[in-house]
Amino acid sequence: MDRIVECVPNFSEGRDMRVIESILEEIRSVHDVVLLDHAPDQSHNRVVVTFAGEPAAVEEAAFRAAKKASELVDMEKHHGEHPRIGATDVVPFVPVRGATIADCVEMARRVGARIAAELNIPVYLYAEAASRPDRRRLPDIRRGEYEGLKSTIGEPERRPDFGEPRMHPSAGATVVGARRFLVAFNANLNTPDVKVASAIAKAVRESSGGLVSVQAKGVFIKEKNLAQVTMNLLDHERTPMHRVLEMVRAEARRHGVEIVGTEIIGLLPLSALLNSALWYLQVDGFSINQVLDLAIQK
Amino acid sequence: MDRIVECVPNFSEGRDMRVIESILEEIRSVHDVVLLDHAPDQSHNRVVVTFAGEPAAVEEAAFRAAKKASELVDMEKHHGEHPRIGATDVVPFVPVRGATIADCVEMARRVGARIAAELNIPVYLYAEAASRPDRRRLPDIRRGEYEGLKSTIGEPERRPDFGEPRMHPSAGATVVGARRFLVAFNANLNTPDVKVASAIAKAVRESSGGLVSVQAKGVFIKEKNLAQVTMNLLDHERTPMHRVLEMVRAEARRHGVEIVGTEIIGLLPLSALLNSALWYLQVDGFSINQVLDLAIQK
Repeated sequence: MDRIVECVPNFSEGRDMRVIESILEEIRSVHDVVLLDHAPDQSHNRVVVTFAGEPAAVEEAAFRAAKKASELVDMEKHHGEHPRIGATDVVPFVPVRGATIADCVEMARRVGARIAAELNIPVYLYAEAASRPDRRRLPDIRRGEYEGLKSTIGEPERRPDFGEPRMHPSAGATVVGARRFLVAFNANLNTPDVKVASAIAKAVRESSGGLVSVQAKGVFIKEKNLAQVTMNLLDHERTPMHRVLEMVRAEARRHGVEIVGTEIIGLLPLSALLNSALWYLQVDGFSINQVLDLAIQK
Repeated sequence: MDRIVECVPNFSEGRDMRVIESILEEIRSVHDVVLLDHAPDQSHNRVVVTFAGEPAAVEEAAFRAAKKASELVDMEKHHGEHPRIGATDVVPFVPVRGATIADCVEMARRVGARIAAELNIPVYLYAEAASRPDRRRLPDIRRGEYEGLKSTIGEPERRPDFGEPRMHPSAGATVVGARRFLVAFNANLNTPDVKVASAIAKAVRESSGGLVSVQAKGVFIKEKNLAQVTMNLLDHERTPMHRVLEMVRAEARRHGVEIVGTEIIGLLPLSALLNSALWYLQVDGFSINQVLDLAIQK
């Protein structure tokens, strides 16, 4: 596959495995889509599903899954600890390869319009696909949750982006959007002093004057008896892993501390690692077609 | 494709494009094989073909191409500058991903036996597949070339590994073997002084006390007015790119010189770049399944 988009929808069912399996089956039924993970949570009573593939196929799989969830999940009977407004609660599209965030915004708009038109579910656009600044963040859209939104959806500032301002009687409302791939990257230090990790985190993260699109905090890792700078890279293309790591290293040296190792949590796009390989190896004039494994998969 | 082997056969025809095209067509006819490159050379009167794919498919494509060459190339009429002993002169198998050099040795033995049995062409095994130390190097096997081998093939030390000690009347003999992927990696220095590049090359290469499986020499690059350490990495898994580059850097510093950039010439396996990314980023406990692009192609 030349072009890859990831989709990480949340559905409001974390207990009935038959319902979850039926939703997963819809995703598996689409060619050129691979189901990568699903994490049901009983106390939150929701499941986070991860799948990826060719953009048009991912778009179709997202719609089919939302349709199935609207048939099987009844929000009138739903209880769980996690905030939610609908059976298909949120559907983010994430660019991985050969697709831009703008492509994912378009996917979100198309799927959102289709969910509203074909399933009669009101849809809100969020994150990079948001139509208004106050809809960029999920908590703002989820305010009042399913139960509260039933009465407030008619208010001007709560009108959905697609569909009538009227909750679906059992499936509620759905949030659809586009966001960048989040790379979870942690650096372990040769000190147990969490104050050093916190000082480094403060220097590195966007919120206190560091690198844009980087979130960071210092934590103590008991099993290893060392301090760690735990980070989220929210835009690894603009602020790549190597730049973040070298800044952590520079700040650590200020404290006479070294990085003993790093961890990558969960999935990441191949490009994140390749970009750092080419930077550290100082390679000029490289084409991705020089990678044999990729050249034969064209 | 989980498993990838590359094959880089040389055929003794560099002028008649219809013959070359017929050979290429045999390779293209095999599913799960991708033709990556072909470089016909008129003065050498040979073509170097590069293809890769699933091991069994690559093996089949190599045989079909050798069969076609045996039908279309007449060594009795062949003239060219490059040493050669047959229509299909040499067939090396190269591991790229999910296959070992031992797998490629087995492929070479099977294809060699088949070329001898089905095409009546005597076959020599070379490089990692060699049956004797004096057959590891191609020039030793090619000694006397097609014309000379016709009379010496009956001598005990020249007997082929497969088939009768009798040249095929038009296709001659063929060399089949297995070798590791060669990564061509050059480092440009911030000096035009080729003596510095030569001193670094001498320190880095195996032949004069440096890193095993590394060939290196210093050259002057006129267009850029700088000296370059030009290298072949003959076993990038054991002696990876980052180790070579960091040794070049350390030796360069001895002369007060820095690396201004590097070049990767031609193809290389993805693993060569990923191994260096993980080393520089100091990543512990990483699984290749965490690379989303690869996880969905399983």
